[in-house]
Amino acid sequence: MGSNSFGKIFTFSTWGESHGKAIGVVVDGCPAGLPLDESLLQRDLDRRAPGSSPQVTPRAEKDKASICSGVFGGVTTGSPISIIIENTDADSAAYEGLAGLLRPGHANYTYLEKYGIFDHRGGGRASARETVGRVAAGAVARQLLAGSGVSAGAFLSAVGGCSFSDLPWDEALPFAARSRIFAPSAGAEAAFLRILEEARREGDSVGGLVSFVLGGVPSGLGDPVYAKLGAMLGSAILSIPACKGFELGEGFAVASLRGSACNDGFECSDGKIRPSGNRAGGILGGISTGLPIYGRAAFKPTSSISRPQRTLDLQGREAEFNLPPGSRHDVCVAVRAVPVVEAMCLIVLADAWLRNRSARLEGE
Amino acid sequence: MGSNSFGKIFTFSTWGESHGKAIGVVVDGCPAGLPLDESLLQRDLDRRAPGSSPQVTPRAEKDKASICSGVFGGVTTGSPISIIIENTDADSAAYEGLAGLLRPGHANYTYLEKYGIFDHRGGGRASARETVGRVAAGAVARQLLAGSGVSAGAFLSAVGGCSFSDLPWDEALPFAARSRIFAPSAGAEAAFLRILEEARREGDSVGGLVSFVLGGVPSGLGDPVYAKLGAMLGSAILSIPACKGFELGEGFAVASLRGSACNDGFECSDGKIRPSGNRAGGILGGISTGLPIYGRAAFKPTSSISRPQRTLDLQGREAEFNLPPGSRHDVCVAVRAVPVVEAMCLIVLADAWLRNRSARLEGE
Amino acid sequence: MGSNSFGKIFTFSTWGESHGKAIGVVVDGCPAGLPLDESLLQRDLDRRAPGSSPQVTPRAEKDKASICSGVFGGVTTGSPISIIIENTDADSAAYEGLAGLLRPGHANYTYLEKYGIFDHRGGGRASARETVGRVAAGAVARQLLAGSGVSAGAFLSAVGGCSFSDLPWDEALPFAARSRIFAPSAGAEAAFLRILEEARREGDSVGGLVSFVLGGVPSGLGDPVYAKLGAMLGSAILSIPACKGFELGEGFAVASLRGSACNDGFECSDGKIRPSGNRAGGILGGISTGLPIYGRAAFKPTSSISRPQRTLDLQGREAEFNLPPGSRHDVCVAVRAVPVVEAMCLIVLADAWLRNRSARLEGE
Amino acid sequence: MGSNSFGKIFTFSTWGESHGKAIGVVVDGCPAGLPLDESLLQRDLDRRAPGSSPQVTPRAEKDKASICSGVFGGVTTGSPISIIIENTDADSAAYEGLAGLLRPGHANYTYLEKYGIFDHRGGGRASARETVGRVAAGAVARQLLAGSGVSAGAFLSAVGGCSFSDLPWDEALPFAARSRIFAPSAGAEAAFLRILEEARREGDSVGGLVSFVLGGVPSGLGDPVYAKLGAMLGSAILSIPACKGFELGEGFAVASLRGSACNDGFECSDGKIRPSGNRAGGILGGISTGLPIYGRAAFKPTSSISRPQRTLDLQGREAEFNLPPGSRHDVCVAVRAVPVVEAMCLIVLADAWLRNRSARLEGE
Repeated sequence: MGSNSFGKIFTFSTWGESHGKAIGVVVDGCPAGLPLDESLLQRDLDRRAPGSSPQVTPRAEKDKASICSGVFGGVTTGSPISIIIENTDADSAAYEGLAGLLRPGHANYTYLEKYGIFDHRGGGRASARETVGRVAAGAVARQLLAGSGVSAGAFLSAVGGCSFSDLPWDEALPFAARSRIFAPSAGAEAAFLRILEEARREGDSVGGLVSFVLGGVPSGLGDPVYAKLGAMLGSAILSIPACKGFELGEGFAVASLRGSACNDGFECSDGKIRPSGNRAGGILGGISTGLPIYGRAAFKPTSSISRPQRTLDLQGREAEFNLPPGSRHDVCVAVRAVPVVEAMCLIVLADAWLRNRSARLEGE
Repeated sequence: MGSNSFGKIFTFSTWGESHGKAIGVVVDGCPAGLPLDESLLQRDLDRRAPGSSPQVTPRAEKDKASICSGVFGGVTTGSPISIIIENTDADSAAYEGLAGLLRPGHANYTYLEKYGIFDHRGGGRASARETVGRVAAGAVARQLLAGSGVSAGAFLSAVGGCSFSDLPWDEALPFAARSRIFAPSAGAEAAFLRILEEARREGDSVGGLVSFVLGGVPSGLGDPVYAKLGAMLGSAILSIPACKGFELGEGFAVASLRGSACNDGFECSDGKIRPSGNRAGGILGGISTGLPIYGRAAFKPTSSISRPQRTLDLQGREAEFNLPPGSRHDVCVAVRAVPVVEAMCLIVLADAWLRNRSARLEGE
Repeated sequence: MGSNSFGKIFTFSTWGESHGKAIGVVVDGCPAGLPLDESLLQRDLDRRAPGSSPQVTPRAEKDKASICSGVFGGVTTGSPISIIIENTDADSAAYEGLAGLLRPGHANYTYLEKYGIFDHRGGGRASARETVGRVAAGAVARQLLAGSGVSAGAFLSAVGGCSFSDLPWDEALPFAARSRIFAPSAGAEAAFLRILEEARREGDSVGGLVSFVLGGVPSGLGDPVYAKLGAMLGSAILSIPACKGFELGEGFAVASLRGSACNDGFECSDGKIRPSGNRAGGILGGISTGLPIYGRAAFKPTSSISRPQRTLDLQGREAEFNLPPGSRHDVCVAVRAVPVVEAMCLIVLADAWLRNRSARLEGE
Repeated sequence: MGSNSFGKIFTFSTWGESHGKAIGVVVDGCPAGLPLDESLLQRDLDRRAPGSSPQVTPRAEKDKASICSGVFGGVTTGSPISIIIENTDADSAAYEGLAGLLRPGHANYTYLEKYGIFDHRGGGRASARETVGRVAAGAVARQLLAGSGVSAGAFLSAVGGCSFSDLPWDEALPFAARSRIFAPSAGAEAAFLRILEEARREGDSVGGLVSFVLGGVPSGLGDPVYAKLGAMLGSAILSIPACKGFELGEGFAVASLRGSACNDGFECSDGKIRPSGNRAGGILGGISTGLPIYGRAAFKPTSSISRPQRTLDLQGREAEFNLPPGSRHDVCVAVRAVPVVEAMCLIVLADAWLRNRSARLEGE
């Protein structure tokens, strides 16, 4: 499997560069018989789309998804689903001046070290624009899982050190769904916008945290030993550009706890046994418990900032790096990472859900 | 690929249960021509072995590795390397009384939900004993990479909330290599042992953090987009039993930073350009920069504790869970996770190192 | 990996249905730094294109390849290469009347059994039109391997029982390269055209054989045990629509031989040892010997024939199956299978060539 | 996935050399809840075991299987099933004299070209002894599929040019099940034994054909496009040592047919539509039709022959190759390939059967 693919049964692959003709995604392994609602798919893409606020990149892509295969009469056929999103607004000329410079915090240094060549226009393949393909694949996964009651929600839980991690989900998720920056409450939205605006004004960027909650997940998903559900979620989320940390359930905090305080007990109601607490974050031994799966991911500040930065050119000479005038970038990548985190979680769940059909002799 | 396998070119698979006949590991994809030193391999296993202190599980396994294939005249042949470690000290009888109970914090609940059957003896496949296979595979990876100057070191950086994360590596790593609990300094060792002893006395357990440093890694390792080096390391480490969090470089702390403070610059010496700082943790855009790769992992407290715990039996009736008298477990799984983290890092690097041979037309 | 992908390092995936918007192929794993000549790629597609003779399907597709990613300044970047070939000439309306009928010899019966849904327009995903993607991927592989002197040639060696298998390659391959039906000699071309024309006139179709020769293959390619080079070639070629048999070297004929007559000896010249005969077909123990790899594949007669056929409708009622007037199909699929066989061979070799870079400690 | 592994959901890996400590196989992906009958597994191994007649290798291995993991209380747990067969009768000393010689028809030349090292004792990893692991994995697959009514039978259909391919299966399969050389009739057995004995007496070997029939296969197995069921069977069987050809259904013969004679029609009985003929060999468009899947494989004569052969030593000097006195080998590898072909078919079917659980939204 190529390194631009993800998954085992429900798989997807993306192609395309930020300033190339298009970004494409091919979903292979979606079961046949799923009515695929193109407007719901578009709605997921719109949530990730730039331009909703001055703090997120004002590039006016339409991000219009075109389904090119695998759907017949509105229903999936079992054949690969190819979705293409054209790049209609890319202005590559603005990037010409940067071709000879190393971009601080960016991947052009490492791409050059690895490949000896780099498509520098707008970040090329390393651009966050690639994530539009992830969101499209995630939209397919969302519709696949919807019938089973599985849902994925995420929100921006911290920006630049200002954290709102502890809001109850039943308030945070609905609010985030309406917030243009995926903030979990009115207070958080106001605080975050203030921080974002301040950074923007100063030509700088900020980091942030994204929290996710996966509800309605049946017990039994995830495979020991190396395909633990938490490891798959971690791998999926850590592959999002700028992600530097992942934690499941109480995460790093459990390192300070004692076992007597950390172990969840069990309860029995209606003849069904379930864990009575959920410090584990919905996963035990790599397998879902049936309780909500939750966790957080850390995103570094956007590497592209408006103020000048010291750097070198490709010959090693001192240089100043300036973004082209009018260039577009997010002040905080964590904002638009929210729907991407959701998408990656849904993809992991869809794959685990299908894989689980082979766990027992008698089938699911 | 089955879910008990890991890797793409340098791959390994493990089999075996805690109280079965043996734990086995098959390394497939190690290049031919590597002189494999069995005593170095055994040394790596000995570091993970239980029994070195009262705080770690006193089970007296020898953990003697037997190489059964793939090596001829002391040199790898390119064929799969099968390594078997017999279970010589497992006392399954002690676990018979637990067969009908759910174990708080353990995986028998989820295995039963998934598979409808569970080998309850000593935790079965979900036991941390499985990690002996990872360490054996990691020992092969270590020898494979040694000629290229790649090294992996890890240490116990926090126990039960007491943290020594910030010690300089050139002091922490050599000290940890000699410490029986992989502590990074004499002060840390004393503090950690105190906490471990206190928890043991109280029939409890504690969580901890493991820090890792990968030195001498050439630039260019890791594949965008879904096989980013950080995502692979995250996946590998999050698959270790009890791991609940992973961070790369400055990790969660970057979420509070600004881009102007977070972006590393570049410097040029001897005609070679390198990043001048390393907040990125040695990876940019998923590809190694050539600087040390570092990060941390969080481990929850050992689920097995000596004091009685409330639980349910498999029929949902209230019950008290008591470990069998004389049963053996670690007070803090993070301690013995240290060599396992090292092993998983080495395996990821070995795989990325071989994958990178196909990155350019002209070969490595 | 989804079932529409092929390969391990040099991988490709196809998407698209015969009468959908387009056929697409994504090549992932092509090394960076390869100058990719779009006109050479187009030339390979043109060889497979329909319309060159009345015996092959007169559908007037342009089969114009559009490279959408992975190439920058004419050179591969290491990112996925997406190539799209639009379906400009598909007339789906003609197929509407067939939606309710089982097509003898076709896959709509089995697709319906498997998926419960079938895109019946022109054969949907099961159409031989999918192979245009294979040829595009093969064209990339051909250019990748050209620098190493590897070449792949194929020709039509038998049609409807009339066989020209034994012509010397140095005559057959150059002639086939110019023949519009890939015949290996003027005599074969005349004989084949006569058989094809006769079958066409009678509203029927015929089967055929394709022979292939892979020259300049370095020794050492192919991995024991399950990735033997012959097994990979067999898998690749048997996945081409209508292929029912594959043989390597002397193939089925060796079953009648004795070992003393079948074993190839060795010779030494210029200090280099090589097999002195090549009954093995260039592969021993699954690994290339350095001598030409050759073999043959059998293709059944085209399932679509012009004369009426008895069949059932989807409700099980007797019906007569008639191709829509003006519908287009090949009289013998083996003809246009020739460039597809070449392409699949090249893809297998490219993958084995890259995989082999990890065979030894010291690299290639 | 390493090259010593096979399969996607139902996977297996083998390790071990002919004269090493043991041959091992790890089955990963067998569903939980399967009662695994160790005596049935042993019976399958006994069928492949040497020593049943003077014409097959008299090496007196017991081939006693030891199940080391993945089974608890006689039932599979979903964890990897490790099966080890010790090499108790290997006499490596006899092979010492051959270390410096190229073995005609053998793989030591290509292993040396690829890896630079070769375990020459008894053929090392390239020995047919590796197939004992395949048969053990096939025995697990056989038991997995038995409940669904799937069966696999194979027989020796030709030896040294003497063919009995056309016997009716309902006579051939039961007879072959009792024949010590898997012959399909008393007449075939007598004829084959005569040919084998003659070759043995003359210090030579002969090739042969193996026919297989897979009954009770449900419709819908196999994935288009690159995981066509026929391509998977071909890949599996072509990976067996000495296999040089594979054909499905009528195979190479269809290349001489016309479509009107080759297309199978349909019939409807009890409301179920099925093909009314089976020239396709039970597979259309890569997916099973529900009718028996059948085909043939060609095996070259055993490369090891008793009479002296001309060869070179590793320095390129002329030499004579003589098998060590008392060395053991089959006169015709096709004989013992019969249970191996069965095993590989069962493994492919088990994998396709589990993969098919994800083909539709509503599950199997």
